[in-house]
Amino acid sequence: MGRPVNVGELVERAGKGEPRAVARLISLVENASPQLRPVMKALAPLVAADGGAHVIGLTGSPGVGKSTSTSALVGAFRSQGKRVGVLAVDPSSPFTGGALLGDRVRMQDHATDPEVFIRSMATRGHLGGLAWATPQALRVLDAAGCDVILIETVGVGQAEVEVASLADSTIVLVAPGMGDAIQAAKAGILEVGDVFVVNKADRDGAQQAVRDLRNMIALAAYGPDDWKPPIVSTVAARGEGIEELVRRLAEHHDWLVGSGRLRERRVARARDEVAAIALTAVRERFGDLDGDDRLDRLAGRVAEGALDPYTAADELVEAVAPS
Amino acid sequence: MGRPVNVGELVERAGKGEPRAVARLISLVENASPQLRPVMKALAPLVAADGGAHVIGLTGSPGVGKSTSTSALVGAFRSQGKRVGVLAVDPSSPFTGGALLGDRVRMQDHATDPEVFIRSMATRGHLGGLAWATPQALRVLDAAGCDVILIETVGVGQAEVEVASLADSTIVLVAPGMGDAIQAAKAGILEVGDVFVVNKADRDGAQQAVRDLRNMIALAAYGPDDWKPPIVSTVAARGEGIEELVRRLAEHHDWLVGSGRLRERRVARARDEVAAIALTAVRERFGDLDGDDRLDRLAGRVAEGALDPYTAADELVEAVAPS
Repeated sequence: MGRPVNVGELVERAGKGEPRAVARLISLVENASPQLRPVMKALAPLVAADGGAHVIGLTGSPGVGKSTSTSALVGAFRSQGKRVGVLAVDPSSPFTGGALLGDRVRMQDHATDPEVFIRSMATRGHLGGLAWATPQALRVLDAAGCDVILIETVGVGQAEVEVASLADSTIVLVAPGMGDAIQAAKAGILEVGDVFVVNKADRDGAQQAVRDLRNMIALAAYGPDDWKPPIVSTVAARGEGIEELVRRLAEHHDWLVGSGRLRERRVARARDEVAAIALTAVRERFGDLDGDDRLDRLAGRVAEGALDPYTAADELVEAVAPS
Repeated sequence: MGRPVNVGELVERAGKGEPRAVARLISLVENASPQLRPVMKALAPLVAADGGAHVIGLTGSPGVGKSTSTSALVGAFRSQGKRVGVLAVDPSSPFTGGALLGDRVRMQDHATDPEVFIRSMATRGHLGGLAWATPQALRVLDAAGCDVILIETVGVGQAEVEVASLADSTIVLVAPGMGDAIQAAKAGILEVGDVFVVNKADRDGAQQAVRDLRNMIALAAYGPDDWKPPIVSTVAARGEGIEELVRRLAEHHDWLVGSGRLRERRVARARDEVAAIALTAVRERFGDLDGDDRLDRLAGRVAEGALDPYTAADELVEAVAPS
């Protein structure tokens, strides 16, 4: 696990916004370091009482311009004097490194700005790891004084949608002529989008994409107290529409605070994080009970057909958590 | 949950290979029906002593020809007189229905063959669901007397790789000129591939794709007892190379049986299934302890920064599983 960590000092330096300390802490998160326990303990009191950073998720199919949009948003928030964190999460790939290099390159405009923290994070093949790694990385960036944190995910799939929905505000990007994005949106993505963006809006089919989204939103059953997602047309590569997007995001944040939903979303995020950590602890006990390989023995009997998997699971649960 | 289920009758009919009973049971799996417990209990003794069906997973990027290859393999196994199950799993999408229609269409050659069972299965946004839903669906098809079961996944991501690796033999498909497939392969997919296929081998770049794969395999550190994955060139749309592919799969199956690895893989699959069911049961207790909303209260304190997530998780575990 590399050099020993002086947790107190590292957290203090990260709290002052020192980039190397922030990077080090996120590496600990990424590597599921045993040091995370004291780190998170030290970070907890630094969570701002006003809710801290506005966490904004971006999701959408490859090719819709997520990285370009993220970069444009960083520029817009920086021009408002805000400190910005960018977390590029690659949840669906078991292949670490490499995959996110493209994004890093596009982010180079901001790489030397001391008020911008950019980190890629691969979650090392741990599906359950997403649920805790993302909130923990957010906590680090929050403690480092970020006003806004952008979470960019790679690809569109369930895991990406889950990551994006850990955010306070989720942007769903589509591009003209990418029928699959609209199809996906029609089929269910509507639920996670707080703001829809039709990027590359200078291309043919942009009007149609906006109309499609508008129809979907009209058909969705929003209650009187629900947020109705706006649609913003952008050409992120030229910065067009980004100001409006920032304005819509601010409106959504105001609505979240005013309606009490911000707290609800933060509690939901913490619930998933705590449950994921607890389940990992329980799972560790499965294979390690009295130095006994209970799970292996049960699995062997299930594989032979001597036992059904539910009865095996009952035995396992009874062993670690007697009812 | 629809009509009441006569479990005994349904399992008996499925055991005789009756397509409607098989379809009904897989729907119960897909919907995580409470009826699964008695169903799996009834199915357990039907698991064949010789290991039952040879389970073959297919994975690869969209566009490499997975569906066409699956269809060609079905034809080849049918000409050997084998009963074949096809399970098309869409693990990464939260969007049910629709996504797999394309595959169903391509499968229509076999749709009226009573010795071929074809089922799509969406796992309804349950990440943890994959670990148990796929083995359970396999158990149903196994009990229905399938000699071979093909698992086709949609897209390439961690979840897809996980599903494919629940199989006894995993085919990794690439196509010429799809650099991303080779990149993915280079970065880590090698571990899950038992047989590599360069499909669309009549296209430019096929020789290069074979060379790339051969180099990767040469560089990988296989032990003397390890299986060295062969590379097969196919044009699945015309059936070319499919006979060789079937032969390689049979060789891999022989190796699995002879080396004891088949049993190891089956036990590992059962281990994941049992653990996933047990964790679901434990997780249900988190929110439902003495009618108390312990997890919500802990999450609220974490969201406020009054508590760190690890201490919260400790409290939760101690409550459901006292040490």
